Amino acid sequence: MYQIPRGTRDFTSEEMFKRRYVEDSIKSTFQSFGYREVQTPTFENLELFTAKSGEAIIEELYSFKDKGGRDLALRPELTAPVIRFYVEKLQMEPKPLKLFYFGNCFRYDRPQKGRYREFRQAGCEIIGTDTPESYAELIALSYKILESVGLKNIKLNIGNLNILSSLFEKLKLSKDNQKYLIPLIDKSMFDDVVSALQDFDVSKEDAEKFIDILQTSDVKKIFEYVDNTPSIKEELMKLEIILNLLKESFGIKNFQIKMSIVRGLDYYKGIVFEIEAPSLGAEKQLCGGGAYELVELFGGKKTPTAGFAIGFDRTILALETEDYKFPILELDAYIIPVNEDLIDKSLKIAQDMRGQGMNVDVDLLRRGIGKSLKYASSIRSKNAIIVGPKELEKGAVTIRDMKTGKQETIKIKDIINFFN
Amino acid sequence: MYQIPRGTRDFTSEEMFKRRYVEDSIKSTFQSFGYREVQTPTFENLELFTAKSGEAIIEELYSFKDKGGRDLALRPELTAPVIRFYVEKLQMEPKPLKLFYFGNCFRYDRPQKGRYREFRQAGCEIIGTDTPESYAELIALSYKILESVGLKNIKLNIGNLNILSSLFEKLKLSKDNQKYLIPLIDKSMFDDVVSALQDFDVSKEDAEKFIDILQTSDVKKIFEYVDNTPSIKEELMKLEIILNLLKESFGIKNFQIKMSIVRGLDYYKGIVFEIEAPSLGAEKQLCGGGAYELVELFGGKKTPTAGFAIGFDRTILALETEDYKFPILELDAYIIPVNEDLIDKSLKIAQDMRGQGMNVDVDLLRRGIGKSLKYASSIRSKNAIIVGPKELEKGAVTIRDMKTGKQETIKIKDIINFFN
Repeated sequence: MYQIPRGTRDFTSEEMFKRRYVEDSIKSTFQSFGYREVQTPTFENLELFTAKSGEAIIEELYSFKDKGGRDLALRPELTAPVIRFYVEKLQMEPKPLKLFYFGNCFRYDRPQKGRYREFRQAGCEIIGTDTPESYAELIALSYKILESVGLKNIKLNIGNLNILSSLFEKLKLSKDNQKYLIPLIDKSMFDDVVSALQDFDVSKEDAEKFIDILQTSDVKKIFEYVDNTPSIKEELMKLEIILNLLKESFGIKNFQIKMSIVRGLDYYKGIVFEIEAPSLGAEKQLCGGGAYELVELFGGKKTPTAGFAIGFDRTILALETEDYKFPILELDAYIIPVNEDLIDKSLKIAQDMRGQGMNVDVDLLRRGIGKSLKYASSIRSKNAIIVGPKELEKGAVTIRDMKTGKQETIKIKDIINFFN
Repeated sequence: MYQIPRGTRDFTSEEMFKRRYVEDSIKSTFQSFGYREVQTPTFENLELFTAKSGEAIIEELYSFKDKGGRDLALRPELTAPVIRFYVEKLQMEPKPLKLFYFGNCFRYDRPQKGRYREFRQAGCEIIGTDTPESYAELIALSYKILESVGLKNIKLNIGNLNILSSLFEKLKLSKDNQKYLIPLIDKSMFDDVVSALQDFDVSKEDAEKFIDILQTSDVKKIFEYVDNTPSIKEELMKLEIILNLLKESFGIKNFQIKMSIVRGLDYYKGIVFEIEAPSLGAEKQLCGGGAYELVELFGGKKTPTAGFAIGFDRTILALETEDYKFPILELDAYIIPVNEDLIDKSLKIAQDMRGQGMNVDVDLLRRGIGKSLKYASSIRSKNAIIVGPKELEKGAVTIRDMKTGKQETIKIKDIINFFN
């Protein structure tokens, strides 16, 4: 027997119906914010990803040579491809350019719960604007997407990497020492940060104050702490505007300031944000994003960029964990010809109903009524239409409600009305 | 500058909107026939494709080793993966099982017009039935899908490989000679077939009769020709039933019998069919399908299978060639705050409108009204909403119809009604 590749998944029709439902919801929310969908190839030239993330990323990629000797890689994420697309073909478009995407991504990773080697991402990039209202709208969009798919329990955290950098500078930390601290901050291992800071000749008091600032959600407190740095004051004022817009214009109150958000300091600049579903435990992060710089690196003319990506699979998992009631794919009717002479007529009735927008199936195995009703129930048909010779002589059929078992005889010409 | 890999494509938002529209239409038609969507991974173990198609297919595949040394390949088509899925996980499902799919496929091919290295397929498999009504429904479905997406000029051809084989047998052709003829028949090079047949000791008269049968669309004529073969008689009778159902139950009259359809004799068995868009020239085939055998080869319990695949990219190309009027993505409104103090209010109006199902964008670059109106027009917004201080004092805004230029002042609380 042939098997599915390790770490990948097949999706049954029940799963696909859920996935389509969530995807359609996400798509609608993107479009309601004026974003437009784009698509890029499943693989890119390998150098696109090493340019963005360094050679080390090759370890996590499915990379291969094509028959012309070119180094290609299955995409691990979609920001690099979309910005490559922008630089190659869209630079002349009116700004801001608001692009969204869905795409399967690939990571050569140890398979584990909630992590797959092929996974789906939804995301967007906004190109050509860095006003506070742009960032407020972007963050609001990510939140509204997850709220609109039906999630009840999500947490939005907002940080700022320029402010984090200035906090490092205030403590006069070398780049190497910063690098040492970042993974600890990322994992909220603050006790370890305090002892490391003391090793780096920071007083215990200053170290604890620093941790306090990393954990505060009070922007004023951060203001006071960085009072001597004008560029950071500007960044903080921008942050305050963003937070006010989130509250007042978008009605989002459920967020936290969290200066300990790290997210790749080389790549992101300024505002960063994350949305978590606490119910998911260790793999709780559903969305991550922020302002970043990539256009110039890819050979384009400098312009501000920001975006976010949502883990599609985790979003589904979070909905399932919250016991969300997904809609179910049902058939309107399953048509059962009681003998072989009635097959043609049954197929015709089915086709006429499809022409009126209904989802209809017909017994194709010439089974008896009993077996056919059992099948109709297994494929979740709301009704069975039994086509028998006597009724047909009078231009009628029997319609059976599969839930109640109630049966009625209906003229064929009245079927459409009956269903409306 | 980084470039897109050779033979692949980026899709702009205009193209994606068309593609989504066509995909949604195809999906609806599949569902109206009781088919349910499934999905398999983008890559499979290489041996899945060599088992189906022989080692020679490796030349046309993107194959690679993963870091565990496993041989993988990007899928070149979806029937093998879906049947692998069936054998691995779905054999116990009630029959018939009607599965449809969309998926990107990959072929290491010389890029040319209408042929790409990454391309999209839509398709389906029906598992567990081989009644004539199953095949009639399957063929009708393929035709209705292409008709429903809006194609006007399509041609359905139906053949049968069992009948073709018996025609070969009637001429007492060796397997080698059959193999020589098949590509000639496939390309309708009938003069060459006649001379080859004469080389194979078939009389000119018999050779011409054979060509006549390959080209006829008159089932009775084929009946007479094969009158001595009972198994083929049965196959022909089944074919007649299928053709009658297509005409009478599904209202499809626009098809041709074409015994010269070849489509991989090792794999397909019995009925085969193709749909062409003659407007596309050399790359005119949009759909191909038929009954095939694969379940046992993949280690499953023998059961009848049939299906078809539709070239998604060519379907779009055919619609474009027919000058089909695709719907266009428009925004309901673009909101322009006339000064910075009105940004928060503008964002709020936008968000309230989104909450009512509208697609709304807001100026994020603090431009003047003139530039903003130009942008609104470039992103195809039907209306602009100008938020000015005087109107706002009275709780009102100015709505401008972007087509006519007509402006009206409307109370904010009446905006939703105005748009309904």
